[in-house]
Amino acid sequence: MTTTTRRLNLNVGINTTGYLGNAWKYRTGTKHDINDPDYYRRLTELAHKGVFDAVFFSDHPALATDPNGRPFHTIDPLILSTALAAQVPDIGFVVTMSSSYNSPFNLARRTQSTDIISGGRLIINIVSSFNPAVAANFGSEPLPPRAARYARASEFLDVAKKLWASWDPAREGEVPPERFWDASSAHAIDHEGEYFTIKGPLNVPRGPQGHPVIAQAGASEGGIDLAARHGEIIYCNILSRPAGQAFGKKVKDRAIALGRDPAGIRIVPGLVVILGETREQALRKHELFSGAGSEDGLLARFAKENGIDPADFDPDAVLVGANFIPDQNRLMAVGMGLGLSELLTHEKLTARQAVRRSEGHHRLLLGTPEEVADAIIDFWADGTVDGYTLQPPRAPDDIAEFVEKVIPILQDRGVYPRSYEGKTIRDRYGLPYPA
Amino acid sequence: MTTTTRRLNLNVGINTTGYLGNAWKYRTGTKHDINDPDYYRRLTELAHKGVFDAVFFSDHPALATDPNGRPFHTIDPLILSTALAAQVPDIGFVVTMSSSYNSPFNLARRTQSTDIISGGRLIINIVSSFNPAVAANFGSEPLPPRAARYARASEFLDVAKKLWASWDPAREGEVPPERFWDASSAHAIDHEGEYFTIKGPLNVPRGPQGHPVIAQAGASEGGIDLAARHGEIIYCNILSRPAGQAFGKKVKDRAIALGRDPAGIRIVPGLVVILGETREQALRKHELFSGAGSEDGLLARFAKENGIDPADFDPDAVLVGANFIPDQNRLMAVGMGLGLSELLTHEKLTARQAVRRSEGHHRLLLGTPEEVADAIIDFWADGTVDGYTLQPPRAPDDIAEFVEKVIPILQDRGVYPRSYEGKTIRDRYGLPYPA
Repeated sequence: MTTTTRRLNLNVGINTTGYLGNAWKYRTGTKHDINDPDYYRRLTELAHKGVFDAVFFSDHPALATDPNGRPFHTIDPLILSTALAAQVPDIGFVVTMSSSYNSPFNLARRTQSTDIISGGRLIINIVSSFNPAVAANFGSEPLPPRAARYARASEFLDVAKKLWASWDPAREGEVPPERFWDASSAHAIDHEGEYFTIKGPLNVPRGPQGHPVIAQAGASEGGIDLAARHGEIIYCNILSRPAGQAFGKKVKDRAIALGRDPAGIRIVPGLVVILGETREQALRKHELFSGAGSEDGLLARFAKENGIDPADFDPDAVLVGANFIPDQNRLMAVGMGLGLSELLTHEKLTARQAVRRSEGHHRLLLGTPEEVADAIIDFWADGTVDGYTLQPPRAPDDIAEFVEKVIPILQDRGVYPRSYEGKTIRDRYGLPYPA
Repeated sequence: MTTTTRRLNLNVGINTTGYLGNAWKYRTGTKHDINDPDYYRRLTELAHKGVFDAVFFSDHPALATDPNGRPFHTIDPLILSTALAAQVPDIGFVVTMSSSYNSPFNLARRTQSTDIISGGRLIINIVSSFNPAVAANFGSEPLPPRAARYARASEFLDVAKKLWASWDPAREGEVPPERFWDASSAHAIDHEGEYFTIKGPLNVPRGPQGHPVIAQAGASEGGIDLAARHGEIIYCNILSRPAGQAFGKKVKDRAIALGRDPAGIRIVPGLVVILGETREQALRKHELFSGAGSEDGLLARFAKENGIDPADFDPDAVLVGANFIPDQNRLMAVGMGLGLSELLTHEKLTARQAVRRSEGHHRLLLGTPEEVADAIIDFWADGTVDGYTLQPPRAPDDIAEFVEKVIPILQDRGVYPRSYEGKTIRDRYGLPYPA
């Protein structure tokens, strides 16, 4: 069921025009692409050519109406992934869904349905929504506090796991000829918790993976706890080796404390790659794709984002990590801000260096295909990460370039497969099947 | 956009092993079929061969755990239809969904996503759940009374229509080169009603049909009102011509009273067809597929279902319709029971005759392919019905037989197309596009 040799796992984000908000000006395609199912089929086929384990959809159930931005979350990702699974073989789908604004029965049913339809290729990324614009689409209640959202998310997944296991045709005994089935293969779950009261059983049977693989993305204390309890693939932002090792240890230690085997956890952070024939060329592309226009522009953005007075800003002075710790109660994803503070705690960096180390909160790799492949393998080889979720600045361009130039190097180095092996996501990630 | 010549519309139900609970013993295939996506693909391809307008999925989000029954609602029908739409061209999908246990934003988003992915082939059948087993999967609240459920369903569709229209890229003005889009093409709906408070806009744009076609199935007073307000394809049980004409007039008169053009309403009741080389052979198949075993068995079942004391039961006495009116407050679909009482009100029938007029609450046609085609065209020709939703006792067998033997007759009579015309369900049903 699992491969015996450890290998690099790679997912790739394929939301709309790519990960970076300003890079669409330099991409191939039309603006109509963002709502065209056929465009997502082409991106998925491109990812399949690169033997990616999965395409990744982030999501918010709200339209970002900034006239200077672009709609980033449109077609429902579970619906879209279901159609793509029917069109493209092998590859998996990471689908982001809100535990705050779904009911466990419906979500368990829909996701198990897609896992069955795809033959075991679904990964669900359960998030507890933190955006007031999302809350306003689901009633007049204000957003609950973060702790309550995570407590609800944890119970949500407890219930979902009970539902996913509640009807298993493999439990059928001998069925007499006048009967269609052995109804004792299904049993009520009778869950009565703090947030949910649900009888069950689920009306979709156990699927090819037992249940869909569970991804988890929060890095706040509540997020770490949820990852330790339920997370199998951990999406996070890791900008340095010591920060990554500390994060992985924290999640795995918490899992052990909860009585869970940490062998079922994979660390697969986001990664932004910008390739050039030389590093200098990659730096210039970074300045363009980021929207900053120049290195000075990147520095000005850094000062603004971190509340530094331009009058006091020396881009060549070493930064103090403690000054960059995000407020745990702010209304955005805490984990996104933690990456920078941890990077600056573990490494002595100036702002001029720091702006080249992350983009869109994720590890940034700038350089030639060889340099990028080396840097990916570097963090993977010692177990700091198990793989990456590539976030291409532009889709399709930066996916195509990565598949053409970086993937063959990873394959030649023997760390990445040349074709799909195993059938399910659990096989490919070496994750255990639920009992 | 619409065809000028009226023609017969046909859908076909493809839940699990077919419509009748006891007919699986006489079908081709294995029990594993009911959870096999590939089985549903084969059924959809069969329906496509017969140029059916749509396949139809009824649904309850609960597992029927009767050991003597069979699971009838398993894989989520919207998820399944989305995969099928990616695999089979042209044909539409009627997907049943609960307004009681979904949020309008999520439902509007998912359905618009599937309508876009399928190129305008989605019909949603909105039902207000009446089953306590369903309620128990969604919390500890008891089922609200019928009137409240229908009021909520009506506001649910009001909100969904606002959301479906809230982002329309066709409203975009000139977009300056530094911008990705004209954000004024999307606007908040700011809905504040009795049941829902929703800001919007939807993050999926207007689809190829404006919004999915809305089917409606209830025949209680609340159901008629919902049909008149929102229904475009009315699924119902019509057992006789006068009952059908009275029902159609009632819905259309109510629509007019509400200021709606009744030209946008199609009456497409359920229909059970059992074919034989002779009528006698069809009668024997009816006795088998119904599970009754014989005509006496059918009569005994009739007496039991209608609370008639066997000692007082004369199967050859004319029945009184007034004795068969269902209780409007009982915990099941009122419309299902109304069909029989209306049949017996409009026609003088004995029990021996009545048991051959409906099966599974729907109009039953027993006979040769020619007799069946004649009876279908008979009700269609004078506008009593606009078409039918075929409910095959056995799937795939009775779909295959209908496609092979009845469809060619309907085509030869010039009432039914030989191939798919138009692109969307609205085109094929001659339904208006929302403004």
